[in-house]
Amino acid sequence: MSDKKVRFGIVGLGNMGSEHVHSIMGMNEATVGAVCDVDLSKTEKYTARYGMKAFSNHREMIKSGLIDAVLVSTPHYDHVPIGIDALAGGLHVLVEKPIAVSVKAARQIIEVSKKFPNQKFGIMFNQRTNPMYQKMRELIADGELGTVRRVTWLITDWFRTWSYYASGGWRATWAGEGGGVLINQCPHNLDLIQWVTGMIPNRITAVGFVGKTHPIEVEDEMSAILEYPNGAIGHFVTSTGEAPGTNRFEICGDRGKIVAEHGKITFTRTRENVQEVNQKSPKSFASIETWTIDIPYPKAEGGEHKRLTENFIKSILHGTPMLGPGVEGIHGLEIGNAMMMSGLTRKPVELPVDGDTYDAFLSDMAKQYGGKKTLTTKKADVDMSASFAKA
Amino acid sequence: MSDKKVRFGIVGLGNMGSEHVHSIMGMNEATVGAVCDVDLSKTEKYTARYGMKAFSNHREMIKSGLIDAVLVSTPHYDHVPIGIDALAGGLHVLVEKPIAVSVKAARQIIEVSKKFPNQKFGIMFNQRTNPMYQKMRELIADGELGTVRRVTWLITDWFRTWSYYASGGWRATWAGEGGGVLINQCPHNLDLIQWVTGMIPNRITAVGFVGKTHPIEVEDEMSAILEYPNGAIGHFVTSTGEAPGTNRFEICGDRGKIVAEHGKITFTRTRENVQEVNQKSPKSFASIETWTIDIPYPKAEGGEHKRLTENFIKSILHGTPMLGPGVEGIHGLEIGNAMMMSGLTRKPVELPVDGDTYDAFLSDMAKQYGGKKTLTTKKADVDMSASFAKA
Repeated sequence: MSDKKVRFGIVGLGNMGSEHVHSIMGMNEATVGAVCDVDLSKTEKYTARYGMKAFSNHREMIKSGLIDAVLVSTPHYDHVPIGIDALAGGLHVLVEKPIAVSVKAARQIIEVSKKFPNQKFGIMFNQRTNPMYQKMRELIADGELGTVRRVTWLITDWFRTWSYYASGGWRATWAGEGGGVLINQCPHNLDLIQWVTGMIPNRITAVGFVGKTHPIEVEDEMSAILEYPNGAIGHFVTSTGEAPGTNRFEICGDRGKIVAEHGKITFTRTRENVQEVNQKSPKSFASIETWTIDIPYPKAEGGEHKRLTENFIKSILHGTPMLGPGVEGIHGLEIGNAMMMSGLTRKPVELPVDGDTYDAFLSDMAKQYGGKKTLTTKKADVDMSASFAKA
Repeated sequence: MSDKKVRFGIVGLGNMGSEHVHSIMGMNEATVGAVCDVDLSKTEKYTARYGMKAFSNHREMIKSGLIDAVLVSTPHYDHVPIGIDALAGGLHVLVEKPIAVSVKAARQIIEVSKKFPNQKFGIMFNQRTNPMYQKMRELIADGELGTVRRVTWLITDWFRTWSYYASGGWRATWAGEGGGVLINQCPHNLDLIQWVTGMIPNRITAVGFVGKTHPIEVEDEMSAILEYPNGAIGHFVTSTGEAPGTNRFEICGDRGKIVAEHGKITFTRTRENVQEVNQKSPKSFASIETWTIDIPYPKAEGGEHKRLTENFIKSILHGTPMLGPGVEGIHGLEIGNAMMMSGLTRKPVELPVDGDTYDAFLSDMAKQYGGKKTLTTKKADVDMSASFAKA
């Protein structure tokens, strides 16, 4: 650390990487020591403005001595190899979501990270800094809902145009991204559905569609039913073809339900335990007294990416617990892999997902659908601030 | 008709049949000419109060000359044989929902009804008289939503206690009811999801559970994904084990979405056609101007059963079009049969459902689960007015 500042090397200067450079350059406890992109021309505007060194090869940057941590914001398939190189090179690593495209690759980087317990390994689960999701998690962890019986997330407000998919040749291809809405738009939702509830499903039954409303070769709509080991049921519905779309996250337990929609948490609390009434009431049509409560939660300062990155920096400098430990990146990915495989093969998939089976499935998809994206690549108007789902 | 009053014979004096006797006795254009129950003691309080004749055999009642129409409110399996006897006996027929337990039986009575075009054949789809659903149907029929792309109904507010299931030995058994939440609680929802949208799915993938929160032998929870011939997707989630439960009916099209919840219809209308923006916008993250509109609809007078019955009477006396033609009873039943078979076999089911296949499935279920209802039958507190789902 120079002057107690964490010096980041940022790999991949696409839309997100670019945001990260500017954001970190404005922080007190961090700076950008180097930038890296296979297309060196993309580094020029940063080196010209800030004066850091540029690399076209991430291994050179790792060896340079100029940085303490690597932020990986490359296309998805490069997250794992670059992350592993950086860990092996003695650096802290913060990877953009998803941790990997497939569970097998995710398990590899997690295993490697365990060999370097003194280096921080984090994942950009910036939505874990959202006070609304933190509050929902707290309610469940504190037992306010009792045992969770149903988790339903309708998250169809990921509208993306044909222009979006045309804006990068790698976008919405099996070879370039390893999937569509599940791997690009939904990693946060897939993480939150397990982080908020503390539950991971053990079987997923899904119905998915490749290129339903866009001429692409990956899935742009997915509907999934999740079964949990404790008997709870879950639902996850997403699409990039719907507008205005819905974002409603509903969790029911033995003491009522919480619904998060339009940035508001509504708790319909039952005065009695639902399953006790179910079993013991002498009435056929028992109605349980319920209280409808608006749950308050604090507003957060700054953007979610900034907050997550600052938390990662504090974990390095001050030992603050990480909000997004890299090892937890596997959970949402595994749920997404199971949805993808079930939705496109139309067979239920058990969790944990077998790594080799999923990689073989990915190869099959690439063979079956590769080249079916018929959009001509062209530069589109990109405003990343419009890309994050509103809670 | 005596004095232009339709004289009903009511078969089956359980909870619903009892309501119907009192309701019809209060109508101007109808009366109850006879009541019938295999347990003749159940008829006494009506014959004592109103003086009509009682029968223990429906065939005797049909031949009696005392009635013009039969209202069938027996357990489900008897709807078809009694309905067919009444049609063959020259009478009008109004059957309680469901029209039948299986599509094969439903097709039989529908075929028979076509041989008697001068007799009315109706089904108690009383929720079709609900102005909220009528308004939703109107919005879609008028094209306000454009092409429908997604239909999602979370209808989990069918909470039923163990006492409810203990209140009749036939309840929640394969032999007595032919299913659980889908065949008893949901027939209206299964009808409305097709009547409101005008769309019938061609494939259903479901996950269902027998006796999840009640010691019964039939399904008490079901989650289904519906695929439609036009490419639209649907979701239907129900349970009798949840409280307070959710009743949210959401329909999305190319011109926005309507959400019906808490008795309110909210239309989020897009100013542009979503799929045109999708295809033509130069922006990657296009945001479409939307208007949030509270859709007004009239309040209805009287109860839904009364309104549907009065409509049936008017169809006999004045030729008024029937709101619930019996021949339309097959649609929701078929959707329910497909959900049931898919949810319990865990395989996608194509529609139309093959009648023999479904009947064989029903036999399998009875063999596999018959006798697993472990509740001792006892009289419970019954308040039917609490049993109808609030919109």
